[in-house]
Amino acid sequence: MRGYSGDKDAYLKRLRRIEGQIRGLQRMVDDDEYCIDILTQVSAATKALQSLSLGLLDEHLKHCVAEAVAEGGDAADEKVREASEAIARLVRS
Amino acid sequence: MRGYSGDKDAYLKRLRRIEGQIRGLQRMVDDDEYCIDILTQVSAATKALQSLSLGLLDEHLKHCVAEAVAEGGDAADEKVREASEAIARLVRS
Amino acid sequence: MRGYSGDKDAYLKRLRRIEGQIRGLQRMVDDDEYCIDILTQVSAATKALQSLSLGLLDEHLKHCVAEAVAEGGDAADEKVREASEAIARLVRS
Amino acid sequence: MRGYSGDKDAYLKRLRRIEGQIRGLQRMVDDDEYCIDILTQVSAATKALQSLSLGLLDEHLKHCVAEAVAEGGDAADEKVREASEAIARLVRS
Repeated sequence: MRGYSGDKDAYLKRLRRIEGQIRGLQRMVDDDEYCIDILTQVSAATKALQSLSLGLLDEHLKHCVAEAVAEGGDAADEKVREASEAIARLVRS
Repeated sequence: MRGYSGDKDAYLKRLRRIEGQIRGLQRMVDDDEYCIDILTQVSAATKALQSLSLGLLDEHLKHCVAEAVAEGGDAADEKVREASEAIARLVRS
Repeated sequence: MRGYSGDKDAYLKRLRRIEGQIRGLQRMVDDDEYCIDILTQVSAATKALQSLSLGLLDEHLKHCVAEAVAEGGDAADEKVREASEAIARLVRS
Repeated sequence: MRGYSGDKDAYLKRLRRIEGQIRGLQRMVDDDEYCIDILTQVSAATKALQSLSLGLLDEHLKHCVAEAVAEGGDAADEKVREASEAIARLVRS
């Protein structure tokens, strides 16, 4: 069981849609479509990935981090440190 | 007491340094300095603000959220929801 | 001919690699892998997409915008406006 | 003369408003205000800085880069390269 397990099918569906966006981008480049139109689609795929991250992170805080904190001990500190590092990677990507 | 209280002086010092960067930007614009040099300084100030956010958020998770979760109840869910919203604002800003 | 035409194969290769990253993410979710490991991979894919955008935009400025400006007239203003809007979408995504 | 010279007063006004936001943040930290409220204000200041960057960059492309391109020669390539680097710093900050 993971934080996102309850919404696993929804996450898989979102990832398949993003995969479709990336394949659409390959067709656009292959068809020599206009740079700006390609950039617009890249921005849409990037936003979809970020929104997915925010969802996963929310579930992670709600389930995994909260459970570790409730159990107490060093595992809780470790989980918070790990979550903070993931947030930093997200903000900087 | 807040999550950041233990580092309050360090946070104030960082904010004063960022204030100095913003005042430096005003001098640069007033002196008609080169656009690209101004943009470089704006990026530096933006990065400093983001790094401050990540620090505050880490302290918030470590202290405020962890305490609420340890106490249990609805307050814990509310704290996690609030933290997730703050992370989303950070990622999208 | 587009700004990116000279590097078309390289862009297609990068997009296929990103498609592979997205499919890898589907496997990770399907296998119930750890949230933080999934988030790390999402950050990597997001960074790859952003780096692709920056490359496309550089080519666009170098070729399409520069040509329009060299030809002069309203088309040049329109190209710059369009590029600025694409940059704004990129920064905000 | 710089790309932003026509709007110099507006840029100075925006920077003074951002300086006010940073000083407001110092007061909030000094008064031990709630972490999440501070984070909301940091996000607002970050967004204001990013919007300023996008404005400066648009003026830079419209004036400085367009002039260099119209004049032709190596200076034009150099200006585009410089602008692309500034955009990359913006996107990654």
